[in-house]
Amino acid sequence: MNEIIRLLKSHRSIRKFTNQPIDEELLLEMIRAGQCAATSSFLQGTTVIRVKNPKHRKKIAVLAGNQQYVETAAEFLMFCADLKRSGDCCEMHGKTVAEGFTEHFIIATVDAALMAQNVVIAAESEGLGICYIGGIRNNPAEICKLLNIPKNVYPVFGLCIGYPAQNPETKPRLPVSVVLKNEVYEDMDDLNIIAMYDEHVREYYRTRTGGKKELCWSEQMAELLGKESRPHMRAFLREQGFEMK
Amino acid sequence: MNEIIRLLKSHRSIRKFTNQPIDEELLLEMIRAGQCAATSSFLQGTTVIRVKNPKHRKKIAVLAGNQQYVETAAEFLMFCADLKRSGDCCEMHGKTVAEGFTEHFIIATVDAALMAQNVVIAAESEGLGICYIGGIRNNPAEICKLLNIPKNVYPVFGLCIGYPAQNPETKPRLPVSVVLKNEVYEDMDDLNIIAMYDEHVREYYRTRTGGKKELCWSEQMAELLGKESRPHMRAFLREQGFEMK
Repeated sequence: MNEIIRLLKSHRSIRKFTNQPIDEELLLEMIRAGQCAATSSFLQGTTVIRVKNPKHRKKIAVLAGNQQYVETAAEFLMFCADLKRSGDCCEMHGKTVAEGFTEHFIIATVDAALMAQNVVIAAESEGLGICYIGGIRNNPAEICKLLNIPKNVYPVFGLCIGYPAQNPETKPRLPVSVVLKNEVYEDMDDLNIIAMYDEHVREYYRTRTGGKKELCWSEQMAELLGKESRPHMRAFLREQGFEMK
Repeated sequence: MNEIIRLLKSHRSIRKFTNQPIDEELLLEMIRAGQCAATSSFLQGTTVIRVKNPKHRKKIAVLAGNQQYVETAAEFLMFCADLKRSGDCCEMHGKTVAEGFTEHFIIATVDAALMAQNVVIAAESEGLGICYIGGIRNNPAEICKLLNIPKNVYPVFGLCIGYPAQNPETKPRLPVSVVLKNEVYEDMDDLNIIAMYDEHVREYYRTRTGGKKELCWSEQMAELLGKESRPHMRAFLREQGFEMK
């Protein structure tokens, strides 16, 4: 296993950070490394908003469901899927933008994720820790208002980055056989394999919380999929110009 | 700049591959590295289908818009956003799945992208080259039929991986100032900066094609955003269980 694969496999979210700031040039290098990720049709459909203002950080922390590390991380980056920039180019060349296609939504969202993951790897390669903040989608309209995010742009997730003040274990992942299929999608044995994995996850929580938490993976999924999830997203996206037609 | 950031910044798509196969254990390591990427609410919402069957490869190459490297790459991986696995867990625990939320679509799609980008970095760290194949969304229903992809799963993109038989230049990216904003979204100067970047891109194509192609970036964006894009995606996703409510 080479050093880079070792780094990728050592990822865990960091939620406690030291006060050490991130060198300005390093931050820019991380962003540039992010930009070098693949981009669909050369769209480069990501805009990153770097939020330093402590009042805004505090508001975002609350809007994201009281995630305090949004305030305490050295850097907080809001990753936005951006179809405004490309749309403006379209108009500059005298063409009308074909707005609201689901496909455009997908390519911009995937672009944002690919770029972010490169930023994450760059950060972790320098000993920094990160935590993705999907919680910003709890209140996406308020986030847009706070950060002046215009139509045809939407905040996909936030990213906390800083020097770690904790050293948690990595979280056990599903067995490869569940995730990687040969030739066709086939999941006949998966629930049996997941039952074994469940015990693994239960043990992870047990040792990590001193016996207080014993949830297994399939229970977490039942929790996640068994209830409606951010039901405002559809209306928010429509309002924001993502019609999903 | 450390070695890992250097690697991230050296990415370019590879579309010509040697015949050299990828070691089986390395492929599994790449997948495991992919699984270690962050995952929203621990969803692990990605399933990868490894397609070796040459007939299927040929079909996928055609369905993706005649991209021959789908046939010739050592490996072709179909990255699927998977809500079936977690939904099955939900039912296993006696709960009804709250199907069709836009939010669930987003987290599964982002999960697939984060995992794929880790696989890509792992591959490139071993001297392999890659090319994302968004073109599989030209005919997603046919792809699902071919690979037995069930409801609540959809193919987001394919990935060609192999040892490079070409060494193209990296493609110039937008200036950082366009992509990274301070405190709020602000794009007043962007079109001026893009005009300069456009010349840079034009020069890239000029030297790369011996003067045959001279397209600049904003023209490409006008082309991309000025016409409808895969208008079948909405109906396909609905049919596949992604209602987007």
